[in-house]
Formats: sequence, C-alpha cells, structure tokens
Amino acid sequence: MNGMENQKHNDYMRMALRLAFGRLGATSPNPAVGAVIVKNGQVVSTGCTMEYGGDHAEVVAIKNASCNLQGAEMYVTLEPCCHQGKTPPCTNAIIASGIAVVYIPMLDPNPVVAGRGMQTLQQAGVEVVVLHQCKQAAFDIVRPFIKSIARHKPFVIHKIASTLDGRTATNTGDSRWISSEVSRLVVHRLRSCVDTIVVGSSTVEADNPRLTVRYDDFSDTAQNFFSTRQYTFSGYPGSFLQGLLESWKTEVTHTARKVVIGLPGIFHDTYLAKEKDACFFIAQHQYNTLSHRDDYSIIRDLMDSGRIQCTHACHAVEQIHEVCDMLYNQGSMIVMLEGGAKLAGSFFNADAIDQCMYFYCPLIMGNGKGIIEGKGRPYINESIHLYDVSTVYLGGDVLVSGYKEPYTCEA
Amino acid sequence: MNGMENQKHNDYMRMALRLAFGRLGATSPNPAVGAVIVKNGQVVSTGCTMEYGGDHAEVVAIKNASCNLQGAEMYVTLEPCCHQGKTPPCTNAIIASGIAVVYIPMLDPNPVVAGRGMQTLQQAGVEVVVLHQCKQAAFDIVRPFIKSIARHKPFVIHKIASTLDGRTATNTGDSRWISSEVSRLVVHRLRSCVDTIVVGSSTVEADNPRLTVRYDDFSDTAQNFFSTRQYTFSGYPGSFLQGLLESWKTEVTHTARKVVIGLPGIFHDTYLAKEKDACFFIAQHQYNTLSHRDDYSIIRDLMDSGRIQCTHACHAVEQIHEVCDMLYNQGSMIVMLEGGAKLAGSFFNADAIDQCMYFYCPLIMGNGKGIIEGKGRPYINESIHLYDVSTVYLGGDVLVSGYKEPYTCEA
Repeated sequence: MNGMENQKHNDYMRMALRLAFGRLGATSPNPAVGAVIVKNGQVVSTGCTMEYGGDHAEVVAIKNASCNLQGAEMYVTLEPCCHQGKTPPCTNAIIASGIAVVYIPMLDPNPVVAGRGMQTLQQAGVEVVVLHQCKQAAFDIVRPFIKSIARHKPFVIHKIASTLDGRTATNTGDSRWISSEVSRLVVHRLRSCVDTIVVGSSTVEADNPRLTVRYDDFSDTAQNFFSTRQYTFSGYPGSFLQGLLESWKTEVTHTARKVVIGLPGIFHDTYLAKEKDACFFIAQHQYNTLSHRDDYSIIRDLMDSGRIQCTHACHAVEQIHEVCDMLYNQGSMIVMLEGGAKLAGSFFNADAIDQCMYFYCPLIMGNGKGIIEGKGRPYINESIHLYDVSTVYLGGDVLVSGYKEPYTCEA
Repeated sequence: MNGMENQKHNDYMRMALRLAFGRLGATSPNPAVGAVIVKNGQVVSTGCTMEYGGDHAEVVAIKNASCNLQGAEMYVTLEPCCHQGKTPPCTNAIIASGIAVVYIPMLDPNPVVAGRGMQTLQQAGVEVVVLHQCKQAAFDIVRPFIKSIARHKPFVIHKIASTLDGRTATNTGDSRWISSEVSRLVVHRLRSCVDTIVVGSSTVEADNPRLTVRYDDFSDTAQNFFSTRQYTFSGYPGSFLQGLLESWKTEVTHTARKVVIGLPGIFHDTYLAKEKDACFFIAQHQYNTLSHRDDYSIIRDLMDSGRIQCTHACHAVEQIHEVCDMLYNQGSMIVMLEGGAKLAGSFFNADAIDQCMYFYCPLIMGNGKGIIEGKGRPYINESIHLYDVSTVYLGGDVLVSGYKEPYTCEA
C-alpha cells in the first residue's frame, strides 16, 4: 500500500470513527461502532450501531446503501461480529452483500468474537485488512466495552473543572463558574457520550444540577468555537479528545440516566427528584432512618418506583464496588462522575476511576475544595499513573484526558 | 510590505527574540534584549545585553560586526535607549554605525525612553519600523523589567509540579518525583532565566534542594526531547513557553541567587547553608530567638556576613511585601518561587505572584498537599484571573503558563 493509498484508507476509517464516536453512550451494552461503505472511490453508505436490540453498524450501512455492493469496500471501527446475539451475525450480512474488502483497525475484544469474525469473512472470500494506524483511536472508543466484557463493571470517567491551583469550589461552596462557556459546552457534549451520570448528594444540595444536555443554553460564540475548530490538540493522533471534538454534533440522540449517591437533605424541589429516570443509591444506615424524615411520603413514592435503592456494604470502598455492580446490572457501561470531591475520593479509594477528564481553568483561588478528597497515597510511587494523556487547549482553559489502563497494542 | 518580506522581517526578529530570551535573568536590572544585524540579506552580526554595566545588545552587535554597516538593517527586541546610563545611549552607536533601518517590536516601557529612542533615530535619518506581529513575544520578555520600572518590585514566577488532582506532595511530604525527567529539565532551564530563586524553610528541611542548573544530571533522552523539538505548543504565537523552549541552551551563563524565607530547624548541613550566595530572610520574632539555638555560632557567622537578614513586618502579608522590597533593593528583577504550598499561599495573599508556571503530571494522588495553601477567595469571581495562557505538552506532563496582568497593546 503506497502512502497516498494508505492516507485514503485512514481517511475513510476516520470517518467511520467519527460515526462511532457520535454513538458513544447510546449503544450500551454494545460497543459504539461506525461503518462506511466505499464503491468506485465514492462513499455510498454509512451506518452506526443502533440502540441495544437494533442493528449493528455494518448492517445499518448495508441496508442504507441504495446501490449494489458487489466488490465494494467497508471500513468498520471494530471487527464484525460472527455470533448470534440480539441480532444475526454481521459477517453474514457482509458476505451476502458482496462486499469484497473489509478494513478494520482492531479485533473485537469480546472473547466470543476475537478474530473469529475476521476468519469467517476470510473463509467466505472477503479480504480483511487491519489498518493499524487507527487502532489507538478505535481502542479508546471500545474501552468501556472492554471493561464491561472483561470485568463486569461500568467504565467510570471522572470529570472536574478546576482552577489552576487545583480547586473545584471555594471553601464557601461557590463553584459557578470556574470553567469558560466553551468548556461547559464540552461538558454537555461529554454528557451525550455516556449512559449514566453520577453525582453525590451534597452536589445536589449545593448546585441543584440538571445534568442534561442543553446546547441551546450556549451562545453562538461558544458553538462557533467548535464548528470552526479553534482548539488545539496535543497527545497521540486520534485521541479521545480529538474524537470528542471532531465528531461534534448538537443533535441529542439519547439521555443519560442520572444517579445520586446518597439522599440530599431537602430534595423534593430539585431537578433530579423531579426527573423520572433519576435514582438515589442510599447506604443502609441512611436508608434505615428515612422513615423519620418529614418528606417520607415523597421518599416512599420513590422507593416504591425503584428510584431509591439501598446499598448494603458497611464500608465506603465496598459501597462504591456495590454501586458499580448495581450500575452494571442496570445496564450502565459508560459512567461520568460529575462531583463532588468527596464522592470522587470514594471512587478513587475503590480504584474505580478509569478515565480522568480534567478542565484546568485560568483562575487562582488560593485555597478551597480539592479535586479528589480521598485517602491520599503516602508515597508518590503509590499514586495512580495515568496513561495515554492527551490535551486540548480551549482558548484559555485546558482539558486533559488520561486513562488508568494503558492502551495495549495486542489484538 | 508584502507577505514574504513580512515573513523575512519576522524571522530575523524571532532570531533576536531568541537571543534576548537566552539572556533572561542575567541582565537585571536591565531588560534582556537581542539584536541581529542584516546586510545584503545576510546576518552579519548578533548581540545581546551583557551583565549590568556592560554593553547593551545593539552595541554588542555593532562591535561584533566585522564589516562596514553602512546601509545595514538592525532587528532589536526593544526600542534602543537614548539616555546615558551605565553605558552611553545605544542610539548614538546605531547612528554612528551607518545602519539605515531599525526594526523594533515595541517601544521601551522605561519612561525615560518611551518613544524618544525612536525619535532620536528618525531625526538622524535612520528609518524605524515597528513589527507589531512580534510584540507580544517581546512584551513577555520585558514584563519583569516593566514591573521593576513601574512598581519597584521584583516579578515573581510561581513554579510548581502537581499531580492532575492538584497535589504537590503526599501528606507524608514525599514529592520526588511528581514530574517527568523532561519537566525537571525544563525547571533547570527556568532557573537559568531568573536572577533569584525563593523557597520556604520547610522545603529546605524536607528536600534539601540545591536549586542549581545541572543539565548534566539529565539523560540524553531528556536532552534530545528538546533538541529534536518533541513538544507541542498551544496558545498565542511566540508565547513565553515557546521562547523558553526554542531558545533552549545548556550553557549556563549566570547563577541565580537563592533566598530562603525562614530558617530551617537543622540547616548547617544543607546545600543552601553551604552556598555562599544563599540568604535566609527571617521574621523578627524568629530572629529574636536565634541566640538560644545550639547552632548559634554558625548562625552568627551568617548574620555577620549578611546571609541572615531580618524582616520587621508583623503580619505575613506585610512580611511578603517587605521581602519583595528587600529583593528589589538587592537587585532582583525576576524571582522564581519554587515551594512550598504555604509560602506560595503567603505570596498569593500578598498578591505578589505575577506569573504561574504549573506542570501537571499524569498522577492521581487522592489527597495530599495543595498547590497554594493561602487564604482562599470566598467567591469564584474574587479569584485571580490569569491572562495570556499558553501550554506546552511535554509528552505526558503539561506545562501551563499564565500572567496576572494581561498583555497590553499600547506602546
């Protein structure tokens, strides 16, 4: 493959990756996948993973095509599946379509696929080419799926906005706004990439957040910042941040579930109490005292409808493990932790944070609430090291992303 | 001026700016200036400001030239001076040399020059062209000089290495190393750009730092990172960080003075106690108790040689103002504050920090010492806003620089 050919293949794959990125958080427990079909040098169809139970990206793209696909090429961001799940194997559809070559950046980490999809295609005479250059970008998109498959836990993204001196709120609790409008717009974009948003009850008490995606609340200036790509990336090519911003779209395709850890003191007037899908996960000792509260009738309704759920672990770390298990069992694959520092501390103590997405904003507060208030590691070499760090400069604020697990080149 | 011409002029000016940058910290109380002389499209000479009392950049460049300068062009990073100081006016030397055109990025902020240098040249028939595109880069280099001229205070750079969660040491005091080897090499480069380094006595107790520039301690890999320019900038063109890294050199031309605030408990064995130029600035109440210490004979020697100096202010904020006045009066123009968080807190409380240079390193500590432990601002809108933020991605660590005062376009 010569350089120009190679460039062309990577361009199509990047188009598929942007499609996949646009579906992050909307496909759980399936991975978000994108597919592009090219025939005679023209893109003839695209597709991406539908909601669970719906078609996979490959099938969507094949169905979308209005021309005969004999001899066409497909670029798909993950090895096509070869097993019967909620839907028939994608390999069948590809083979039946007459597609001649399938380009993939990586094999499926799902042990029931893991190379068998490729073999199935090859045995049917479909050529399969692995485009290694796009692997890391593809890997980032399936990290939550890998965690889900391998560990039966949700993938947790910890997001914060901090001053340059590492403070997320003043000592009086003021935190609005540390970050710029542009950064806050990125947070709304992030919310559209997860299936669950978790906050602590004190965040609900302090900020009464809605945790929704509200692009319309933002000025044209902020919107244009992204449409005209005024940001600058550093780090590896095709990083999560690059995927996030280059797949920018303001169409909201799904709504993340909101989960509060703990029950706020006064909460019946909060946005989250009023939102039908929002849940409160409450430790046994607090749960046992609820009947003494003045607002018990409201609490009772929420209990009856399953919106207040009890955790049974006695210790904070075990409670977080239990919360993660509950989230996984209730269908969460990509969770964003939005505050506050104490809850982040509990997740840190439980080693439950998989990705950090930290906005550093050009303010100096002098003191205040930290980013994570957990059990500090006594020595530097016991700290958690983050891998695959990338950054984006947002014209003042700097967003840094890093992962607990390094990108692995196998498969 | 057409685009290509303009590019050529800016390239020469950037060469002059790199020369100026290479002299930061070595010229106090004069500004660091660089000059490039071009004749018939060739660089025929360069110069930069010598130590105080020595020649200014323009004169050095003129003396360095081995050819006749009739009709030549000079690129100088600041308006040439027209007044007699320790040395004769640079305008005289320029006029006498036969140089026909002088390119400058900005006027001299020194009120005794402030446009008069340009006028003097013009009246003598020398053309003066202001290259506005390079102004911000030139401005950053003279910020300390502006502070010195206008406020009679040193310009204070606060440098820290922090984990991503805003911690500069574990709760047990471990801080070696949070940052990567490459970042630590940048710190040594930074030390070569200041005339004074300030630390607190507890940093001396905890780390026994030398605060010297020791490029030889670093691996070839780290050195090559800079010589092969593996970093990525974000922010405005010609930012301080860009100047810092693009003027990279490992030749050490001057040694910054070290100042410790407070007297460490046991200190006679520390590197700084042994370094003849290092000083200890001690508050009156501690000073009064020194005669009771076991090591009083050593202390007495240091007092006699002026290495222990007493501050008289009663309150911490006033003490920092006094320290800044003492530093200014003793010839400091560019000070780097290297630790710890409490001392930084005192400087923050005294509103004495002019520039932040924060390394964020891909570690999560969970808790620990903060970046600044001062009097936190109660509300976000009372926080210090930093301007002209730029960043450099160092292959994992991210260095962010920002200023308390915005760049101003006047002059």
